[in-house]
Amino acid sequence: MSTDPTPFAGTLLGTTIAAVRPRDTAAEQAARDRLDRMTKPPGALGVLEDVAAQLAGIAGQCPAPLPTPAAVAVFAGDHGVHAQGVTHWPQEVTAQMVANLVAGGAVVNAFAAQLGADVVVVDVGVATPTAPAAGLLDRNVRRGTADLAVGPAMTPEEARRAVEVGIEVATTLAADHGCLVTGDMGITNTTASAALVCAFTGADPAAATGRGTGADDPTLARKVEVVTQAVARVPGRPATPDQALAALAEVGGLEHAALAGFVLGAAAARVPVLLDGVIAGSAALVAAALCPTALEHVLAGHTSAEPGHSLALRALGLRPLLGLDLRLGEGTGALLAMPLVASAARAL
Amino acid sequence: MSTDPTPFAGTLLGTTIAAVRPRDTAAEQAARDRLDRMTKPPGALGVLEDVAAQLAGIAGQCPAPLPTPAAVAVFAGDHGVHAQGVTHWPQEVTAQMVANLVAGGAVVNAFAAQLGADVVVVDVGVATPTAPAAGLLDRNVRRGTADLAVGPAMTPEEARRAVEVGIEVATTLAADHGCLVTGDMGITNTTASAALVCAFTGADPAAATGRGTGADDPTLARKVEVVTQAVARVPGRPATPDQALAALAEVGGLEHAALAGFVLGAAAARVPVLLDGVIAGSAALVAAALCPTALEHVLAGHTSAEPGHSLALRALGLRPLLGLDLRLGEGTGALLAMPLVASAARAL
Repeated sequence: MSTDPTPFAGTLLGTTIAAVRPRDTAAEQAARDRLDRMTKPPGALGVLEDVAAQLAGIAGQCPAPLPTPAAVAVFAGDHGVHAQGVTHWPQEVTAQMVANLVAGGAVVNAFAAQLGADVVVVDVGVATPTAPAAGLLDRNVRRGTADLAVGPAMTPEEARRAVEVGIEVATTLAADHGCLVTGDMGITNTTASAALVCAFTGADPAAATGRGTGADDPTLARKVEVVTQAVARVPGRPATPDQALAALAEVGGLEHAALAGFVLGAAAARVPVLLDGVIAGSAALVAAALCPTALEHVLAGHTSAEPGHSLALRALGLRPLLGLDLRLGEGTGALLAMPLVASAARAL
Repeated sequence: MSTDPTPFAGTLLGTTIAAVRPRDTAAEQAARDRLDRMTKPPGALGVLEDVAAQLAGIAGQCPAPLPTPAAVAVFAGDHGVHAQGVTHWPQEVTAQMVANLVAGGAVVNAFAAQLGADVVVVDVGVATPTAPAAGLLDRNVRRGTADLAVGPAMTPEEARRAVEVGIEVATTLAADHGCLVTGDMGITNTTASAALVCAFTGADPAAATGRGTGADDPTLARKVEVVTQAVARVPGRPATPDQALAALAEVGGLEHAALAGFVLGAAAARVPVLLDGVIAGSAALVAAALCPTALEHVLAGHTSAEPGHSLALRALGLRPLLGLDLRLGEGTGALLAMPLVASAARAL
């Protein structure tokens, strides 16, 4: 456990961690009392009652403000580990999908439109320069990570800067949105996710590594091998914020770093943050290691087909709202869970 | 297996069963092809892709029409088994909740309003006469069932009439709604549900019987005893439509009968029907025994905290869209799943 009273002092990351407060237990209890007084048997709304109470605790008021409008931030990055043949998709697909997302042509855009949610795309680490466009934030920290199979994916300083990109985006969006939703895009980012899950939970690479978007048997075997190599360089499960940042830099991705910061920024702003798939789940492990209290402000939208995702959620103690075997990313699974969060809030 | 070519000939039940057709496999395949051509990895939308294909197959066109507006039919009935002390709720609560539902004050009304769904309340078997009101259909077949612990809950003729109430409501609603949603209200109707689950699946009463809305340990033990007594009178798992109706009459409820008819009516009209909790799940077992093909048009909204519910869904081969430990009934869990059904349809 950390004994450092002010981790990352003098940085945005440090001040953000210091600003995160636990949920308001009085507001949370008021929500539970109110639910018990409604014309229904106590507890009959199941998990939705927990969500309703959590939302009140996050906001510090009962009833909590409605979690609308929601904003999805899609953090995009590339991965040097692509060179290891861990996917059959060309790396260029990341930049192509960023263009598609900005143009409104991806599935997450359709789901967001249905809900009246905003979509922001953030280039935090795409390998090729992205063309300026409305709805695209250029916050590129480096043009893709280094190959995590053979050495650190990035420096701790780069990792911190990418985390701070996520904090800044969350802080801006929290000003006029009731719920922040994680999204991601990055060819082979499930490899870095599996490595983070193993590094932060101690899980076996063979158990935590999945097929991502369609890896065949030899590719999956290669992926497990690469994750094993990478995790071997992490000297044990991170026990301090500094160690967490170091492990993130060693085996993570730039979008994972930004998503960890996004969680911290939302928590500091007292706005609920709804996680999408395994990329967000592994990033939330990093956020929890940087600042355990931040987790109190997190909701898990769904559990995906990727095995590392349920391992991450279990380690975080988060119960996913949906289980639909999705494996699309982009924030789609979280957006599908958004009506449940809204219903929970409306139940009060 | 049934060898009767025209079960219930000359009745609405008989003509409805005869009108049920399988899903359109060409439309279903067209939906799958279309999903594979979209800018996403094949299968990435998981269960939603199955739902999208199913909707196309039900409608017989691709893309399927949107499943909007939805209509929830809340079938209300009372149960003679109340006399056995299987719940701590007074029987009068059924009629009170019917009044509350009609007045728009129940949770299902709030969830329906949020979705723009219509709510229809149907008195198919409430013990006390209900006051006429807009939004309430008086289709009372009898004023509550007889005590299923000691003898048949109703006659096969009453069961058939209650099934036909459900068919008529479904047929009417299908004319101007894109999805039919099951709802129910009836104090101690989880007892009849458990009995139906045991009768139609062969499950052990101790495994299939749950606490409903808050039964304590002695009440639960009494409930298991009552279910065991009742199921002992059913001479084996129903293998023909006639045997299914007889088993329904022996241990079921009037709202269960109506819900079974509601499923058949929706299937005959080629409109998807979305199941709520254990009451609907046990009624769907009856519907499937009356007409196996009807099941092709059914979606399971959620799995509740009631153990008989997952047993029923497993026997039916239905995968629930949500698992939130709800135990409210009324149609609430199905309505919470409605946005997923709509998203699946919109994905095409």
